[in-house]
Amino acid sequence: MTVILTYYRTIRLSDTDAAGVVYFASLLSICHEAYESSLETAEIDLKTFFRDPQMVIPIVHAEITFFQPLWSGDRLKIDLTAVQLNQTEFEISYKILLSSSDDKSIAQAKTRHVCINPTSRQRVPLSESMVKWLS
Amino acid sequence: MTVILTYYRTIRLSDTDAAGVVYFASLLSICHEAYESSLETAEIDLKTFFRDPQMVIPIVHAEITFFQPLWSGDRLKIDLTAVQLNQTEFEISYKILLSSSDDKSIAQAKTRHVCINPTSRQRVPLSESMVKWLS
Amino acid sequence: MTVILTYYRTIRLSDTDAAGVVYFASLLSICHEAYESSLETAEIDLKTFFRDPQMVIPIVHAEITFFQPLWSGDRLKIDLTAVQLNQTEFEISYKILLSSSDDKSIAQAKTRHVCINPTSRQRVPLSESMVKWLS
Amino acid sequence: MTVILTYYRTIRLSDTDAAGVVYFASLLSICHEAYESSLETAEIDLKTFFRDPQMVIPIVHAEITFFQPLWSGDRLKIDLTAVQLNQTEFEISYKILLSSSDDKSIAQAKTRHVCINPTSRQRVPLSESMVKWLS
Repeated sequence: MTVILTYYRTIRLSDTDAAGVVYFASLLSICHEAYESSLETAEIDLKTFFRDPQMVIPIVHAEITFFQPLWSGDRLKIDLTAVQLNQTEFEISYKILLSSSDDKSIAQAKTRHVCINPTSRQRVPLSESMVKWLS
Repeated sequence: MTVILTYYRTIRLSDTDAAGVVYFASLLSICHEAYESSLETAEIDLKTFFRDPQMVIPIVHAEITFFQPLWSGDRLKIDLTAVQLNQTEFEISYKILLSSSDDKSIAQAKTRHVCINPTSRQRVPLSESMVKWLS
Repeated sequence: MTVILTYYRTIRLSDTDAAGVVYFASLLSICHEAYESSLETAEIDLKTFFRDPQMVIPIVHAEITFFQPLWSGDRLKIDLTAVQLNQTEFEISYKILLSSSDDKSIAQAKTRHVCINPTSRQRVPLSESMVKWLS
Repeated sequence: MTVILTYYRTIRLSDTDAAGVVYFASLLSICHEAYESSLETAEIDLKTFFRDPQMVIPIVHAEITFFQPLWSGDRLKIDLTAVQLNQTEFEISYKILLSSSDDKSIAQAKTRHVCINPTSRQRVPLSESMVKWLS
């Protein structure tokens, strides 16, 4: 697994909660932004990708572990790696760092995605463009 | 582990995304609502709880697995169980069902929480009220 | 305009931000929940309503004014009133109160909605069920 | 009023809802990101800004008008202008465009902010750094 995208993102007020730091689920959402950004670099059109009547790729599992809190204005660097698990499934790993000191991990996350037909909800093989993106 | 709260919640438009179903991170956020509701039933004041200068209990790990998609208007039933892991740490499990057919699991999630001093970020023992809530 | 729904909602951690109080845009989102709840009481199926290929009713204008801050755990009461402006358009007003002292307004909001065909994006008359909901 | 910041932002899946387009309240949240970015260019430290025990600047009014829908992957350009209304208050205007065709407005928004002491919730004069940012 090689890093296929490095995504930069500043923590915004809407990402935080009354405890003063980033709300736990918001950081998973920020990881998903990195995934979307990565799809764009592979020239996948996001407008149609998430609403494709033939094939959608929902997340079937997500997890995140936090080592440090994050505050408004913190500048993140997210390293994204992806691996195809089989014909219909892939997993993305996210290594979340501060861009100012990127030798220290702030959090790490994973999402697992399965390719299905959105009507039947049955598994279908990943498209060529996705297999290409994964390799 | 006995169920300490059953939480009911209707899926709202803001929980969904352009794929038509619930956005993955939103369901973790809904699980956290169940946790908050549970704290309220134990008469813990949420206004001060999340901003306590002596003790905060951030989430250090969260994970969720999806078995079925969820749509706007779906009525959820979440069974929450919690277990104390040691003096400073506990884990909550969430079983997510449709309230209309509650023998079939839609998703399941976990969050792990560690009690710390918000200034030093060092571990401190869980408060009596939290230990009571956990037992 | 008579109140067509009173909606109760507890402020959750995810509604707040690092300033300690409710994030401004979150309260508009909570108002939209009241609108959704109101549609449900009129037996409108939300699963299909927001994805109807014939007719969607996007918000074309929204505004909110805050008189008081709101904190995690605060219990809201929202009075929703609606008025049809013409064949294709209606406006909803939201009066936001604390359920514990409902003589004092916390905030007020408005949303204006226009009925369109989702493909052509041209205005179409409101459906019978919506006209009925509005009267 | 001169444009004090132009902010670029791609629409992400989490900004959208099951109707397929951007959720109305999310675009106000994106406008707030532009405001935060603008504060950063004035070297205001966001980590402390939103949690300052002497002075906070909550939004007392927000409004948004939509002319066109926005989809996942759309690339926005937001022109931010701000005007000081009096010693304690300012208003920000946001002109939201597609970066690919920036002669056509997609939406416009406004937020009004009042400077207060967070404990007393009474108005206090805007700080020097904020007055400088506004001029």
